[in-house]
Formats: sequence, C-alpha cells, structure tokens
Amino acid sequence: MPEPHPAHSLTGLTGRDNFPHRDLLSISVLKPWEIRFLLDEAEHWVAVNRAASRKHDDRLAGLTQINAFFENSTRTLLSFEIAGKRLGADVVNMHAATSSVKKGETLIDTAVTLNAMRADVIVIRHGSSGAVRLIADKVDCPVLNAGDGWHEHPTQALLDALTIRRRKGGFEGLVVAICGDVLHSRVARSNMLCLAALGAQVRAVAPPTLMPECVEAMGATPFTDFNAGLDGADVVMMLRLQNERMDGAFIPSPREYHMLYGLTPERLARAKPDALVMHPGPMNRGVEITSGIADHPERSAITEQVEMGVAVRMACLDVLTRSARKVEGWA
Amino acid sequence: MPEPHPAHSLTGLTGRDNFPHRDLLSISVLKPWEIRFLLDEAEHWVAVNRAASRKHDDRLAGLTQINAFFENSTRTLLSFEIAGKRLGADVVNMHAATSSVKKGETLIDTAVTLNAMRADVIVIRHGSSGAVRLIADKVDCPVLNAGDGWHEHPTQALLDALTIRRRKGGFEGLVVAICGDVLHSRVARSNMLCLAALGAQVRAVAPPTLMPECVEAMGATPFTDFNAGLDGADVVMMLRLQNERMDGAFIPSPREYHMLYGLTPERLARAKPDALVMHPGPMNRGVEITSGIADHPERSAITEQVEMGVAVRMACLDVLTRSARKVEGWA
Amino acid sequence: MPEPHPAHSLTGLTGRDNFPHRDLLSISVLKPWEIRFLLDEAEHWVAVNRAASRKHDDRLAGLTQINAFFENSTRTLLSFEIAGKRLGADVVNMHAATSSVKKGETLIDTAVTLNAMRADVIVIRHGSSGAVRLIADKVDCPVLNAGDGWHEHPTQALLDALTIRRRKGGFEGLVVAICGDVLHSRVARSNMLCLAALGAQVRAVAPPTLMPECVEAMGATPFTDFNAGLDGADVVMMLRLQNERMDGAFIPSPREYHMLYGLTPERLARAKPDALVMHPGPMNRGVEITSGIADHPERSAITEQVEMGVAVRMACLDVLTRSARKVEGWA
Repeated sequence: MPEPHPAHSLTGLTGRDNFPHRDLLSISVLKPWEIRFLLDEAEHWVAVNRAASRKHDDRLAGLTQINAFFENSTRTLLSFEIAGKRLGADVVNMHAATSSVKKGETLIDTAVTLNAMRADVIVIRHGSSGAVRLIADKVDCPVLNAGDGWHEHPTQALLDALTIRRRKGGFEGLVVAICGDVLHSRVARSNMLCLAALGAQVRAVAPPTLMPECVEAMGATPFTDFNAGLDGADVVMMLRLQNERMDGAFIPSPREYHMLYGLTPERLARAKPDALVMHPGPMNRGVEITSGIADHPERSAITEQVEMGVAVRMACLDVLTRSARKVEGWA
Repeated sequence: MPEPHPAHSLTGLTGRDNFPHRDLLSISVLKPWEIRFLLDEAEHWVAVNRAASRKHDDRLAGLTQINAFFENSTRTLLSFEIAGKRLGADVVNMHAATSSVKKGETLIDTAVTLNAMRADVIVIRHGSSGAVRLIADKVDCPVLNAGDGWHEHPTQALLDALTIRRRKGGFEGLVVAICGDVLHSRVARSNMLCLAALGAQVRAVAPPTLMPECVEAMGATPFTDFNAGLDGADVVMMLRLQNERMDGAFIPSPREYHMLYGLTPERLARAKPDALVMHPGPMNRGVEITSGIADHPERSAITEQVEMGVAVRMACLDVLTRSARKVEGWA
Repeated sequence: MPEPHPAHSLTGLTGRDNFPHRDLLSISVLKPWEIRFLLDEAEHWVAVNRAASRKHDDRLAGLTQINAFFENSTRTLLSFEIAGKRLGADVVNMHAATSSVKKGETLIDTAVTLNAMRADVIVIRHGSSGAVRLIADKVDCPVLNAGDGWHEHPTQALLDALTIRRRKGGFEGLVVAICGDVLHSRVARSNMLCLAALGAQVRAVAPPTLMPECVEAMGATPFTDFNAGLDGADVVMMLRLQNERMDGAFIPSPREYHMLYGLTPERLARAKPDALVMHPGPMNRGVEITSGIADHPERSAITEQVEMGVAVRMACLDVLTRSARKVEGWA
C-alpha cells in the first residue's frame, strides 16, 4: 500500500497509485493520504453541485446502487440517493420497515440476496455495530457504511473533515472539541479517528456517564468539564442528543443537559473568536445547541456540512466503483 | 407584470414575457393570464403523454426534484413523481413517516437541509396551512405546493380547470357548483379562486356546518341548499368527505350525509343536461357520489382529471425551472 | 394462436409469431412454447446482468412502470424495480401502506387512476386471489402479476424453471418435489402448472392439513409422506412456512413442523445424489430447511434463483411492452 507522496500536488498520489480499499466500512483502516484523497475527490463534486444546472454525470450509468437502510435516516438516505442519481446510477432503496428481515430472514441471507441481484455498490445503515462488515464479507461489490450501531459513520467524518478543511485551510494543530453524548455516537468515533489522523488535536467533551473509556485510543483527549474542553477550540462539534437518552437513564432531563452541556453564546466565548460550530443534524434546538449559534451566519457551518455530505458521497461512490468500471484511481 | 395580450394566439404572452413567479404556492397570487399560460403549457404534455410510447423528455435532466410529503398522498405523490421522471429529472421522495421531523427537527431546519443538498425544485405537501410558504422562504429553488392544510392545492385547481376547458371550451359564464365539505377543503379554496379568476360563476354548496365564511371573498356564491346550488349548473364538482369528519363532529353520519349531500341521479337532474361531474379522488362511493354517476361515460370527467394532473404538473415543473435552466418562459 | 415450431432453434417461434398475451397473470394460460420463449428471452438478460458493468439497456426508455404493491414484499419489489430500471424505464413504486386504498378507495378506482396516469406497464402484488386480474381488466397496458393471494406468482415459477433448466438441462422426466405448505402457496400453484407443462413429473408433498384438493388438476401427484415424496427426486423445492401458519391453526409448532417436514441431510439422502435444493425465500432456517442444506455449494440453487428472478422479470417487462413499442416478439 502506497504511502503519501507529498510531491503530488492534488491528491498525494503518484500516477500509478489507486485507492486500495474495496469498501468504506470505517475510518479506522484509512491512512491519512487515503482520507485526503477522498476529500480531494469530493472537492470536484462540490463544484459540480454548485453549478446552476446540469449536476448530472453519467459515470455510474448502468450500475445498480442499493441503499439498504435497516435503520431510518431521512437525511443520510436522501444524501446517498441524490449522490447516486447525480452520478447516473440506477438507485433502489430497501426500507427495513418493509423488509424480509421482518419475516425472520437472517442478515446474511439478505446480503446474499442483494448480491445475487448483481448490485454494483451497496450502502448500508444498520442499528448493530459490525452488521455492515458482516454484509460486506458476503457480497462481491463495494459496500459503504452509512452508520452501524455505535461503531462508525465514515462518510459523516469525511464530510465534517471537508467542511473544516474548506473553512480552516487544514488540520495541523487545529483544536477540535467534539461535545455531547460521545459514548453512543458513531459520529464522534469516526470523527475522532479521522481528525486525529489528519493532524488535529481532538478533544472528547462529555458528561462522565456519556464518556467512553477508549477515547485516548482513538486519538482524543477526554474532558468532562465542558468549559475546559472548549478553551481555545478552533472547532466546536456538537453531537445530537438521542431522544432515547433523554429520559433519565443517562441524563437527568433535556433541560438539565442544556444547562450543563448545551452550547450557549457564553460557553462558545471560551473557544477562539473565529471558532467554527458544527452539528451532524438533526438538531434539538434548545437542548444541545441554542438557535442563535445554530443560525449564526459566520460561525455555524451546519448547512455547509449537509452540502459537503452529497459531495463526499458522490466521491466515495465514484472511487469505490472505479475498479469494476476499469477506471484508475485518479480522476 | 404584463397583462393578457389577446392577440397572442397560444399563451396570451408577447414574445418577451415570462412567467413571473419563482414558486407555485397558491392560486390567489396568479393573474388570469398566468393561469391560462400554465394550462396552455399543460396541453403540450397531454399530447406527449398520450403518444403510444416515448413519453420522455429530457429537459429536466441533471436537475434534482425532491418530493417532501409530510402528509401521505399516494395519488398526488405518484403524479408528481411520474411528471418529474418523464421530464428526465432525478426524483427523490422524502417520506414524512421516516423523516427527521419525527426526531424533533424544525420545519425550517428540514427546508435548509433540502436546500443545502442543492435541490432544483421542491414539491411539498404538509398538513398545516402556510407550512409550504415557510419552506419556500428558506430555499433558493422553486417550490410547488402539493397541498398545505386547509389552505391551497394549486395544481389540483389547474388540472380541474384544464379538464373543464377541454370539455366545455372555456369558462366565461360557466356555472360551476363546488359541493361538499368546502370548509376543510384546500381543493375547494384553490378551485374557487381559479375558476372565478377565469370568468366562471362559482357556487360553494355545503351544509351550514361545513361552509366557510369567506367564500364570497374567494369569488363564490354560497348555497346551503344542495338542490338550489345545482340548478342549471354546467359543472358539478363533488368534494371528498374526509374520513375524520364522518364521525359525528360535523355531520350526523355518512349515511345522512349521502341522503342530504350525496350526488344522486335525481339531484344531478337539476343541473344542465350536459353537466360535467368531477371529483378530486379518492372517492367514497355511496357517500358523496353514487357509482352510476362516477362511472358515467359522458358525464363523469373523473378519470380525465387524473390524466390532466400529470400534464399540469409537468407544465409547472418545466415552467418554474426555466429560469434556472436559462430557458425563456414561452415554449 | 401459434403452436410450437420445433424447427426454430432458439425460441420455438417462426419469424412471424409473437408472444400472444398482453398480460402475465398466471402460468395456467401459457402454452409450453410460450413458457420456453420467456425462458429463452431471460437467458439473454442473465448474460447482460453478469457483465462486469453497464448492465443497462434503454429499450424501455420513455415508458412508465408502476409497481403497485398492496402487500409488502421487499425481494420481489426490489427485483422488479431493478429489472425495470436496468431496461431504462421510469419506475415508480406505489406502496399500499401509504395508498388511497386506506382511504376507502375501491381497487377498481385505483386501477383506473394508474391507467389515467398513462402507465405503460403495471406490476401488481395483492393479498387477494384474482385482484390482479380485476385490475388488468380495467387498464390499457400490460399487467404483471407479482403474486395474488393463494392464486399465482408466475414470475416465481418462471425463475424457478429457468434455474432448473440451467442446472439440469431440461425438464423431460425430471422428478420435482414441491414440499411444504402447498395449500396456501401461490408459488407452489404456479410451479406445479409450469413444471408439468414443461414435461416434469411434479409431486406435491405436504401435511394433510396443508394439501389442497386440486393438486392433480394442476398436474402434480400428492404425497403426505415427506420421505416417500422425496424418493428419487431430481429437484427438491421447499416452500416457505408463513409465520401466520406457525401458531397452531395448521401445524402444532415450528419445531414439530421441522421434525416432520423440515429438509434435513437425512431426508435429502432419499432424493437423487445430485438433487437440486430450491427455496423461494426468505427462508426460515431451522424450520423448513436446515442451514447446512441451504448453504450447500453444489446442491443449493437458492442464490441462483434470486439472480434468475431479475433476468426473468427483465424478459417479461421487455416482451410484454413490445407491442406498444412496435417491436416484434422475437429478439
């Protein structure tokens, strides 16, 4: 596997290097140059998507993309569906609510079925950590993880990294505070791994009950004091408080959570004056973030994150299907 | 804004006039020539759709159409989806049942998200009056109202007007009786505004409990006596009785409603001998309309309304995206 | 209607013969040469789908395919959706769960509505036997039955026949045992008719409570003793035990059912040494079939059945729309 070639201007690749993975299951297996390669590719699609019309590219024409969502997620599904259709793929959605899984079929049988229909790329979201890998092991085509349990959500981390790179110019020495329910968050996990790999100083900021033990292994420094965690941060990434955690098992109440861990203007003042505020959405306004910050024209990058999501997914769908399409790894 | 140019044969437009609205949120803001312009455009699509094969036109190729339905509606969604696909757009559906709205996201955050994904046209159905306008104010692309609360359902009024124009040749002096639950009906509201603007004599025929106070402001004359309302009518437009009104709050029972306000052959005899019968569907046969009338080969235009629906929606999608596609407003 | 022309090498057709049906509602009306014709056509799509990329064919471009599923079925819907999209059709799904049917609309009104939208081909699944024919009688375009009640599931029988023909070379004298809940199975019904028409010796193997009276009329021999039914079989086709039958009304318990009618290695030993094992999926592993058999690399054809499903549906969609596309019946 090639190492970074800093001499290569655009992608860190020499002419003969290819993206060396069939699947995108986790950030943890990606090398820094591979992450940068995907971000560079996504830049192309940001420009295409911003064009007034004709966002269409037919490079995936003739390929079948199956979005198999065993867990509901309107935004992520829409983002992958739009990404695939803009690339010309035949996109079909398999909704878990109506799926054979309900009829008692095993996950592996579902995987084998999708494979037998000759899918060319499969996008999977599943409530159980590791389920996506289980499916990937049984199919012949690239698999993209669109979120699996508490494990990883790699395209979310890539879109967050792209957003930060565009706003801050790079990652070296950047202080990024990831704040909230770190314990249950695949978004936090993928982001810690991704940003640490890219050279940022990552902080995991969470109440003691919502702080996993392994944050240091993922390259982050734990902070249970929110104010301390925000001190001098360049980027404040708020996590969504899942509804199912709001009922007393992990936090006393949404109101108390907001008092202690909600991002208010006073708290944000601890970060750098030009600190960027991020949130993977959908937001609980008034719980983990106040509306004034969420809607702040300069500080908030939340809308930009959504836009980068489509571009990153187009890049991943394109790059991962290149081998089958007999296209080399560079644009 | 230009006024009608009767000299212009097809559309009432001179060469340099364009359709002057970005969105189609309500009939109330349309001038008569704008309504006629959309009907004229729809005529083209009626012919295309009736061709034996190759209904496809690629003028929306490369554009992303998002159908965001916060309220279920199989027919209207199908109609908009077919319309967009026949024009070559990349069509994606956002189903409310699986949407982030359920996760507590605000409607405005949903709108901003769809916009960030660079939608080129958004079709919205929502249970609350005014919700579609709220979304339209937050996005950069054209928005089509596919029904919002009790407010408006403009494409339904346009397809009804097109059906009437094709069957009756015009609107001047035509007596149109809109009958049923006028109070809760966005279909009635849009139709009253549309048909009055086009020169028809519109009657709102409803039981006292289901008659809104503002029908005269919308250009219609109120009738609480069904038989009187039908006298000499050229068009009898029955409204759907919503299931949720059938349980006693507004009417004693579906059976009593049928006795007093159901369209029977005896009642229809009060209208002109060649009166046209319309219904927006889906019908409650035996409640607001008897089967013999609904299926009458000459009198019923109910199936034709469905057909006109696809054509009208193709026209609206085409016309509203012309500005972004740098196409002028005339065909 | 033409009879088989054995002299014609590929399809049993002379140059001027066409597939003489507008719809595919049941196997029962098909002549042997018509079944073979569809299987031959499907062979073409097997090859196309196996190509590394570019599975796309645009022969249905410009046509609208509506999949109206009044009964949930992830696999069959996915299979038809992928088939239509690979042929270039504009495919729209109508989900029963969100359909007007819930609003009290009659099935015929739904059919008339789909027809008015100028569908070019309609694929229907419905829980009631005969519902698909009712719809077909009301529309102007070809209708494909994707399963109706206990009646028929013709594309399942065709894909099963294609799988058998590819593995066994033909049907003449082949012993096929169809085992399980034959009574409630449209899959069994269509398969008995199809395989008998093609010359196989078909056995219906079921517990007495799940054996219909009419199996002999469908060309099959009834066996209530599972072991006897398997003796010397070339093909063992297991049926899915529907969950709703597992609770005591028809069988004592899934465990008892497995003991008496589950396919185990010991039982399979009664069949020929090279017997093929089939299942329409989704499987209840450990109930009607053991995992060792389901996953057997040589004996099990279960995954291949799924693959053949897409090819058979592409063939049917292509053949049935040829008349409207002014294409003659041979490739």
